[in-house]
Amino acid sequence: MKINALNLQYEAAIKSKIDQKTKPQGSLGLLENTAMQLALIQSNKAGKLISTIEINQPTVIVFAGDHGISEAGVSIAPSSVTRQMVQNFITGGAAINCFCRVNKLNFKVVDAGIIEPIIEPSTNTNPVLSKTVLTHSKFSNTTLLNMRLGAGTHNFATQPAMTTAQVTQGLAYGEAVIKPLIENNTNLLILGEMGIGNTSSAAAIMARLTHYDVDICVGTGTGISAEQLSKKKHLIEQALLRFKSDDPHTVLEEVGGFEIVEITGAILAAASAGICVLIDGFIISTAALVACKIDPNVRGYLIFAHESNEFGHQLLLNYLQAKPLLRLGLHLGEGTGAAIAFPLLQSAAEFYNTMASFEDAGITV
Amino acid sequence: MKINALNLQYEAAIKSKIDQKTKPQGSLGLLENTAMQLALIQSNKAGKLISTIEINQPTVIVFAGDHGISEAGVSIAPSSVTRQMVQNFITGGAAINCFCRVNKLNFKVVDAGIIEPIIEPSTNTNPVLSKTVLTHSKFSNTTLLNMRLGAGTHNFATQPAMTTAQVTQGLAYGEAVIKPLIENNTNLLILGEMGIGNTSSAAAIMARLTHYDVDICVGTGTGISAEQLSKKKHLIEQALLRFKSDDPHTVLEEVGGFEIVEITGAILAAASAGICVLIDGFIISTAALVACKIDPNVRGYLIFAHESNEFGHQLLLNYLQAKPLLRLGLHLGEGTGAAIAFPLLQSAAEFYNTMASFEDAGITV
Repeated sequence: MKINALNLQYEAAIKSKIDQKTKPQGSLGLLENTAMQLALIQSNKAGKLISTIEINQPTVIVFAGDHGISEAGVSIAPSSVTRQMVQNFITGGAAINCFCRVNKLNFKVVDAGIIEPIIEPSTNTNPVLSKTVLTHSKFSNTTLLNMRLGAGTHNFATQPAMTTAQVTQGLAYGEAVIKPLIENNTNLLILGEMGIGNTSSAAAIMARLTHYDVDICVGTGTGISAEQLSKKKHLIEQALLRFKSDDPHTVLEEVGGFEIVEITGAILAAASAGICVLIDGFIISTAALVACKIDPNVRGYLIFAHESNEFGHQLLLNYLQAKPLLRLGLHLGEGTGAAIAFPLLQSAAEFYNTMASFEDAGITV
Repeated sequence: MKINALNLQYEAAIKSKIDQKTKPQGSLGLLENTAMQLALIQSNKAGKLISTIEINQPTVIVFAGDHGISEAGVSIAPSSVTRQMVQNFITGGAAINCFCRVNKLNFKVVDAGIIEPIIEPSTNTNPVLSKTVLTHSKFSNTTLLNMRLGAGTHNFATQPAMTTAQVTQGLAYGEAVIKPLIENNTNLLILGEMGIGNTSSAAAIMARLTHYDVDICVGTGTGISAEQLSKKKHLIEQALLRFKSDDPHTVLEEVGGFEIVEITGAILAAASAGICVLIDGFIISTAALVACKIDPNVRGYLIFAHESNEFGHQLLLNYLQAKPLLRLGLHLGEGTGAAIAFPLLQSAAEFYNTMASFEDAGITV
């Protein structure tokens, strides 16, 4: 998949436009960086300097998958909760549904491989055709996509989480999810995840790809005990002893999760199509890390929504040279931090598009 | 003016409702604190536990005033820019206009005493009747209120900024601005300011009311040089040597600004009416400090939108035991940080109002 490096030829013109707005230079802080990046991405795609930043059909896609590692008791909840939460997404009752409603974001759910499927897998070989629209509540008209790689991963503490073929298929599924968005002219993507046990997988991926100690990559997820935390670290260290490679595909195979593989595929496909991706918390940032290791050109298309409370996230953001927009102490997942941060992108676009210049306003500083 | 202390009798019930939502406890971080505070304020006003948080007719009011201290060259721009920016507000070209548009916030401007008025002062003695609606552009239908206390303050480095009567009148004007909002059922107020030189006034007020050293209260405002910063500190220290009192009214008289006095009055009136006030950056936080010194019951009605780049702001927020929602490196004023943060309050309300409980969703953790 070809991903164009973000060409910086428009940077000076965009900066000049921002600096001529009626405000002290730099006084809109990170909102100025955000406007710059959105304008760069959209100018690159247009092949010319854009006059206005457009945000078209912003869409949240939550990928769900189960993790064999959770049988070791390293999470606050059992794997059955992954499926219950997917049902909660479908009926519109979860936090991410609230933030999509209030911010007018499109919303889809992908079953990447939870233990027990919500809908029976289609016999159709084209996963996009197995889309099912489920309408369950006054709020919800939710698309659930069946893109199952299996009934949860293997426990990566003792064996590879998945096969090479599953990694390949998962990346292809992630790409397939993005195709209808491209046709719909979506130019902003928000990714979310649900999967009991997935901070363990994310921490393992981060440790191997950054070469940081496991100790500083592992956190308490959504809230485990000190004893569980020690066990979690131990199991991850054990898994990483099994293989030496830091090839991103191998790392996904050994310690990844089905939703993480598909999210990686979605990020790569979005960047390839010139779609900006607003990155949520620790899990999605880990998938972003994998995507950047596969192709460093991805990085220019990523805006980081927030720094979560998960221990490794701040280090991971630093590693990715990311300045997150929010620090609200979130640790929920589902894409919630990115959905909450979305209005900041609208504010960035609005000031870029409609704020007067000193010349417009006749201001003489 | 009677301001009711925020009664905490509903706190346990609100916390229980938040904790039963389908998420790990506390995982929405500061958004949970925000929902708690909004629900407390609205339950207090209703006299019973509210079932849903409503945000009605949220309104931004920007107060503008000029400062005699600016003749000392302690700002990046001359006082004439205050008036030019008021005209920019009216024609819809300023940053605050952008953020009001994108977040659907009502917007008003108050001339609290810029040097040269935009519209001739009404001969009518009721300031609310001197309201003028100015329509200048495709974006703007702006209300400009004449509530002038004078043609800029005196230079507080050498004499009191204003008279006792001006302080009294300014607090009354601030109250008068809030009256139509109460009639309009507004329950969320955002205050902004414009006034070349007003970080000097704010730093002086903060230093005296907190008893912190001037050194740690003074910053570079919207971007002055090191030399200007030294001068600014020196002039503030000189002013504070002139009087010993830390009575908030006296402090306003000695080193205040016309817009700061009226903002203080508006905060007091809003709290008295049970209206939540979303506090912007350094200047508005200083007015909030004055209001809290006049009546500590005010504090319960205040939500702090952001921590600005201004040096003293972090200390002031700590002093007020405030946890700001955003840290975007903003230093623009106008109420921009609060207008940008506003959607976070909508997200807090939405999850409080519509997110499923574990029981609703049939989730067994």
